[in-house]
Amino acid sequence: MDTDLNKIPNSLLSLSDPVFEFNKQIIEATLPHTVAYKLNFAFYEARGPQGLVSMERTMQFLNNRAFTIADAKRGDIGNTATMYAQSVFDYYKFNAITLSPYMGVDTVEPFLKYKNHWSIVLALTSNPGADDFEMLETGEGKVYERVIKKFATSQMSEQVMFVAGATRPETFAIIRKHAPDHFLLVPGVGAQGGSLEEVCRYGMNSSVGLLINSSRQVIYASSGNDFAAKAGEQAQIIQKQMQQIMLDKGII
Amino acid sequence: MDTDLNKIPNSLLSLSDPVFEFNKQIIEATLPHTVAYKLNFAFYEARGPQGLVSMERTMQFLNNRAFTIADAKRGDIGNTATMYAQSVFDYYKFNAITLSPYMGVDTVEPFLKYKNHWSIVLALTSNPGADDFEMLETGEGKVYERVIKKFATSQMSEQVMFVAGATRPETFAIIRKHAPDHFLLVPGVGAQGGSLEEVCRYGMNSSVGLLINSSRQVIYASSGNDFAAKAGEQAQIIQKQMQQIMLDKGII
Repeated sequence: MDTDLNKIPNSLLSLSDPVFEFNKQIIEATLPHTVAYKLNFAFYEARGPQGLVSMERTMQFLNNRAFTIADAKRGDIGNTATMYAQSVFDYYKFNAITLSPYMGVDTVEPFLKYKNHWSIVLALTSNPGADDFEMLETGEGKVYERVIKKFATSQMSEQVMFVAGATRPETFAIIRKHAPDHFLLVPGVGAQGGSLEEVCRYGMNSSVGLLINSSRQVIYASSGNDFAAKAGEQAQIIQKQMQQIMLDKGII
Repeated sequence: MDTDLNKIPNSLLSLSDPVFEFNKQIIEATLPHTVAYKLNFAFYEARGPQGLVSMERTMQFLNNRAFTIADAKRGDIGNTATMYAQSVFDYYKFNAITLSPYMGVDTVEPFLKYKNHWSIVLALTSNPGADDFEMLETGEGKVYERVIKKFATSQMSEQVMFVAGATRPETFAIIRKHAPDHFLLVPGVGAQGGSLEEVCRYGMNSSVGLLINSSRQVIYASSGNDFAAKAGEQAQIIQKQMQQIMLDKGII
């Protein structure tokens, strides 16, 4: 839910909290076809404290009916990380958070102290800039491989997932070598050009192991007053595609 | 200003916004000795939207009387980075923001489009976890060196600063090789054990080139009702040390 005031239907703009109203209707329409909701924090923070109120209301409306991901990409040292964990896990009640690994393992550990919560560590992202540092060769694998190896073998590794971009499906074989059992959060399908089929071919394991994210393709399926219905239809199309792939692979 | 409700004097807790009241008194006492204020976002976000209200009020009270740094360590792709820039630069009116470079140069560019604003990119941080990825050897320098080289030579590089931790002063010579003219934001002096003298010996250039951060040592100089006066004294002590070093080096 990258909910942007400039992209939601005009008819919502006269309401007191258009972002929450949009999210509410999207959730109602997509819930039967959706396993997880990912809220992109930047879109809420851009409007100051009131944007966070929209986020809080969205989380209260969801009320644990689906897995929730704070797409916040935080990454800071111990006591600061603890404060971010309080914000995301205690205050807003998310199940998981995306984290940047740049500063090292000790920046993720405070989040892992929360049982039944997940840390989704950036590994190989879907943007062109991934070449700048993530893809640097270190002698024992590229930087993103070192990230995966470090966290996949760490204590409490079962609470870790990795971000792996759909725009580089050929790298999923490498990622699966280092993290055969971990769940991967896969952005970049749809609007960014990644292919669902290719991601599943290379990235799916015997228990699926993939959380495939499609955001703009779903929430902005229509800019008219039928936005919620169209989002529901789009979510169902993707869910059916995923179901077929899982049937073909004998997973379900 | 890592302002923590659990660390500020009890006498403030009965007020409607204890964090803002603490910040206000700290600012009044330290302003004559301070060039910049760095607000650590995690400490405000931990309390939900009301925490951001305390931040907003703090920024309004400061009202451009000093350089302001959003210590938020954001790092995300283009349209999301644009939203974070809106939040920090347009909404809260900070002059600068700390950014994580993991995802690459394209995650910083949206911030650089704001003229007269600065992006302070994490290079080598002061925590033990810096060894995990920042210090990995890539064949052409360690990861943190590649980060510095990439941004120091990029377009709009004059709006870039780097984070360089005070706990590793011996690396400042390497950092200065790649970024002789850039300003460095240096955390880790004081509570984390870094030495002001060593940082200046290795990191200062002919126009100073250092923003040295001391947070807990100043704001928590006293836990009593004299907290503001003690913070002012502590800020002045550090300012005098810095002034002496600059006199000794012939910079002023």
